[in-house]
Amino acid sequence: MPPDPALLSINTATLREQWTLPQIIDGCVRHGIGGISPWRDQVAKAGLADVARRLRDSGLRVSGYCRGGMFPALDAAGLRAAHDDNRCAVDEALAIGARCLVLVVGGLPKDASGAPVSRDLGAARTMVHDGIAQLLEYSRSVRMPLAIEPLHPMYAADRACVNTLAQALDLCESLSGNDTDSLGVAVDVYHVWWDPELEAQIARAGRMQRLFAYHICDWLVPTTDLLNDRGMMGDGVVDLARIRGWMEAAGYEGQHEVEIFSHRWWRTDPDVVLSTCKSRHAEAS
Amino acid sequence: MPPDPALLSINTATLREQWTLPQIIDGCVRHGIGGISPWRDQVAKAGLADVARRLRDSGLRVSGYCRGGMFPALDAAGLRAAHDDNRCAVDEALAIGARCLVLVVGGLPKDASGAPVSRDLGAARTMVHDGIAQLLEYSRSVRMPLAIEPLHPMYAADRACVNTLAQALDLCESLSGNDTDSLGVAVDVYHVWWDPELEAQIARAGRMQRLFAYHICDWLVPTTDLLNDRGMMGDGVVDLARIRGWMEAAGYEGQHEVEIFSHRWWRTDPDVVLSTCKSRHAEAS
Repeated sequence: MPPDPALLSINTATLREQWTLPQIIDGCVRHGIGGISPWRDQVAKAGLADVARRLRDSGLRVSGYCRGGMFPALDAAGLRAAHDDNRCAVDEALAIGARCLVLVVGGLPKDASGAPVSRDLGAARTMVHDGIAQLLEYSRSVRMPLAIEPLHPMYAADRACVNTLAQALDLCESLSGNDTDSLGVAVDVYHVWWDPELEAQIARAGRMQRLFAYHICDWLVPTTDLLNDRGMMGDGVVDLARIRGWMEAAGYEGQHEVEIFSHRWWRTDPDVVLSTCKSRHAEAS
Repeated sequence: MPPDPALLSINTATLREQWTLPQIIDGCVRHGIGGISPWRDQVAKAGLADVARRLRDSGLRVSGYCRGGMFPALDAAGLRAAHDDNRCAVDEALAIGARCLVLVVGGLPKDASGAPVSRDLGAARTMVHDGIAQLLEYSRSVRMPLAIEPLHPMYAADRACVNTLAQALDLCESLSGNDTDSLGVAVDVYHVWWDPELEAQIARAGRMQRLFAYHICDWLVPTTDLLNDRGMMGDGVVDLARIRGWMEAAGYEGQHEVEIFSHRWWRTDPDVVLSTCKSRHAEAS
């Protein structure tokens, strides 16, 4: 069974080199796409109030807001700064009516130049646990769900030290117990497709009612860049239909958000990117 | 506690661009290094009998032989070809007196050009299971231990679909039950350092008596190439002393094999590479 075309959503990073956020919103509407998930830097550039109004007028569903997180820091001041920034992200997510705030939790603490200054991955994971706990007090009070996104292990040092769905779900259990609305997971196939436990952990997430978001793209062979060589659905090796089946079997009924960081697709006419996202969502997801 | 310098071993891929295998053997002896782990292509080039003789004469301990594996194939002929080739690898490992034959199990089946022709990762994993089972009948009969090396998830499609230590140990349990001598694991920090279960799974491997090999190098931030940008110990973010502590606590008493695929180190004077391996093994592992 092909997916419901109405469930397609566009993560705005996919078009960030070609269009401003207002242009991306207009493009999604023009292409008859049902959802969108904006990034903070794009919202800041366009102005939060203006973006919120445009999104309301557009009728687009906002499948998520990217992103909060980056909890680990060198010292108390750094931890506090991350928390303060994450509170702002929660407020912005509320303003644009997002389904959830996606959390990319951060890796090892860094110095001002961005270089890691610790090898203690366990300590970073503890900072992530504590940072989510603290943010959750606020996000829960204003009813903005947080979605932990496990990132591929190749980003463990510099982007996110939560690297499997099992680990993200353990955090959900530890931090929010029976409160299934406030904390869940974002399943991005790019990050988790390789995991031998993926089917079992998606089923577990479903039983826990923690499947807040589903991101799609593809893994290319060869992959020539660790960051910006993601593939369009159908161009790589991920069995997207199978993984979608696992998500559906687990009760997920939300949107299918296309998030492609790719020098190739950033060089492509953005209308072609959107029409390709639509056709590939239908044929290869 | 710094490691015992006598446990240092050099995986010959670390010097493959500068020296032939006989030169690497001589270099290790000259630098007072205790162990070596050769690759099949280098052995083939130098001649198996000659390499075996040189290794015996050198007094070097052979911490492993790289590599068997690559089990998945498109059809029965391909599976048989992989098996036949792996039997040869077992024989060569015996001839050079290796501690074990390291298995890089292979990813998705490929066509003649090396492009993946399937998205069925589960089926590839079944082919790996069955391929090891078949090879084990032979390797056990000639008493050559096989060491499954879980590879980093970024290689799941094209190099190895065994991507965590837990998964490798599950295979050991499934395939060799109480026979702890014939099938174990090679723990390479580059592939597993990120794993939130690493400490627990190393302990489990120790209880199972399956720790056959330990490979070291470092993870660089940023990593600019998925294949050939591994770091020298101390240059990256891996807490090598901590992981060695977990290995020792699990009862591992074998060698510490340095395996660095790196354009940078392949451009370096090979005597400098070896002296750096020695000093970094002492100071940063």
